[in-house]
Amino acid sequence: MNRAYNFAAGPSMLPLSALTAAAEEMTNFRGSGMSVMEMSHRSKIYLEIFDETVALLRELMAIPDDYEVLLLQGGATGQFAAVPLNLTVRGSADYVDSGNFAAGAAKEAAKYTNVNIVASSKADNYTYIPTIDPEKLNPQADYLYITTNNTIFGTRYTRLPEAQVPLVADMSSNILSEVYDVTKFGAIIAGAQKNIGPAGVVVVIVRKDLLGNAQKITPKIMNWQLMAEANSMVNTPSTYPIYMAGLCLKWLKEQGGVAAIEKVNIEKAKLLYDYLDESRLFHPVAQKEFRSRMNVTFNTGDPDKDAAFVKAATGAGLLNLKGHRLVGGMRASIYNAMPIEGVKALVDFMKQYEAEVAHHV
Amino acid sequence: MNRAYNFAAGPSMLPLSALTAAAEEMTNFRGSGMSVMEMSHRSKIYLEIFDETVALLRELMAIPDDYEVLLLQGGATGQFAAVPLNLTVRGSADYVDSGNFAAGAAKEAAKYTNVNIVASSKADNYTYIPTIDPEKLNPQADYLYITTNNTIFGTRYTRLPEAQVPLVADMSSNILSEVYDVTKFGAIIAGAQKNIGPAGVVVVIVRKDLLGNAQKITPKIMNWQLMAEANSMVNTPSTYPIYMAGLCLKWLKEQGGVAAIEKVNIEKAKLLYDYLDESRLFHPVAQKEFRSRMNVTFNTGDPDKDAAFVKAATGAGLLNLKGHRLVGGMRASIYNAMPIEGVKALVDFMKQYEAEVAHHV
Repeated sequence: MNRAYNFAAGPSMLPLSALTAAAEEMTNFRGSGMSVMEMSHRSKIYLEIFDETVALLRELMAIPDDYEVLLLQGGATGQFAAVPLNLTVRGSADYVDSGNFAAGAAKEAAKYTNVNIVASSKADNYTYIPTIDPEKLNPQADYLYITTNNTIFGTRYTRLPEAQVPLVADMSSNILSEVYDVTKFGAIIAGAQKNIGPAGVVVVIVRKDLLGNAQKITPKIMNWQLMAEANSMVNTPSTYPIYMAGLCLKWLKEQGGVAAIEKVNIEKAKLLYDYLDESRLFHPVAQKEFRSRMNVTFNTGDPDKDAAFVKAATGAGLLNLKGHRLVGGMRASIYNAMPIEGVKALVDFMKQYEAEVAHHV
Repeated sequence: MNRAYNFAAGPSMLPLSALTAAAEEMTNFRGSGMSVMEMSHRSKIYLEIFDETVALLRELMAIPDDYEVLLLQGGATGQFAAVPLNLTVRGSADYVDSGNFAAGAAKEAAKYTNVNIVASSKADNYTYIPTIDPEKLNPQADYLYITTNNTIFGTRYTRLPEAQVPLVADMSSNILSEVYDVTKFGAIIAGAQKNIGPAGVVVVIVRKDLLGNAQKITPKIMNWQLMAEANSMVNTPSTYPIYMAGLCLKWLKEQGGVAAIEKVNIEKAKLLYDYLDESRLFHPVAQKEFRSRMNVTFNTGDPDKDAAFVKAATGAGLLNLKGHRLVGGMRASIYNAMPIEGVKALVDFMKQYEAEVAHHV
């Protein structure tokens, strides 16, 4: 098989069982005489696939009936615009600036509403989740926006902020990796290409009572109300990526669901952070209290040594460990589909590499 | 193999060779140890796939260097908003109302510019392409918008309108099916799911000098200028559907390219229309002069008989012939990937069906 351990930040590894099933069904899905990607999105056979995908997501995340689940296009970046376009009633929103995507979401939102940055860790290159001064929160804000996991910097909310207004979360890089109580949120957005499936789908989970307020300038494909009325099919959805997401969600259910995978994710992250905490060569980047379980950032303190390590790791089949340019160093993204064996292989390789480097010095 | 002849209006049939290649490469793309859908969109290996797809499209359509080619998300419906959001300078645009999607595009555009309907065939349920009275054209319009092929009604522009302003075309349902001179257009938009590849990608071809005028309220993912600067990657693109589009374009090149497939398409359409013109049971819907080569609409004049025929055809492996609810009757979509054998099988089946019905009357 020769499958690599792929530590990319997304798109990234998918469960092998999902890929294998897709390959087997590629030219003739269950006797239909066609590929899933050849099916009309309005056909009964495709609607079953679509509805099953939504049902699995509802089941895995325990999404209550008073929430809509939409499978849209344009990624989380598209939803950076859609959030204020759909949720602006009084005309302002509070944003927490905890990373590059959080800042991008705030910048995009400023086109459509008055954005109030209530906390920021930018000055420290986003190594932690900033604490919100309650006095900065606007009780009249339409919503409070957070990014639950910061892909580039490797930080994660360990406690959700208290808010009197609907909490809106970009969960792109840690959805389905840990148990969240959906009822704590007014809306959740998540690009699929980390923990849901392949790129090309963005999930929107929104409390129904928040719908119906879209601004007149909202493009049809970003109008949550219209999409909810049309079962996400105001126009042709991203049919094949949605099918793939369904296969990945089936795999997750077989693993025991979100609570079960959360335990594995805690174990995987612990393996890596425990080693980083004792290593003399590698140093973790994010502050301990806010460490992400999905994206582990670290470096040697020397860009040349970082590059040499990434190159050596690539040669050993440990791929895409180069950190984002805003942080440098390395980043190991260990989403749900990364098996614990992959993390063990990485830690073993790092230990061996460190020993060799020490030997050569 | 048991592959069906799928006459769906889109998503629809794809070349079998593309599906087979995708299945073979699914879990390990050319020794990379990963699926294309697991690849970072920023990785060298994926960028090669992406660039090759764009290069194939440029080659097949002979797109000059002064045009950008973008592979975006959100479908043609998303571009209905993007067109006026990107091209509004003076503040109004001319639209031809030749069908449901044309009307939808005009309605969406009215959110962002002053829309002037310069011709419409709505009163005749869009059975023809309306002629534009030159006096209705606004020489100060930012663009003139047309829909080159009307999927639902089965009509097609047989001659492009003369325009003093940039011509913008929704080519979703006949792109790559016939030779177009791209230099006649200011911009072309096309959802992929008919003649390009699977759903989840929309192609934008735009003359570079028209860029740089995006309205401030343009969502980032709809900003053509930003997307052009970022090689369509302001955010993660729909990576796997783009790869599939590349495989489909390779197939098209192997068929001899657009000029060669156009000949086959003319032959396929002729087979079907010739029979419809002589049939006593089935009647073509679109006016002869404006018949689409991609979507052939017909009926018996009796909804019950139509339904009985569709059911019988389905039983014979001729799938998705039911017409759109706005037209009723039947519609055979015969895009590039529908082999001529499929059209022959349909005509043979219709002849036999007609003979049997005549016999029973």
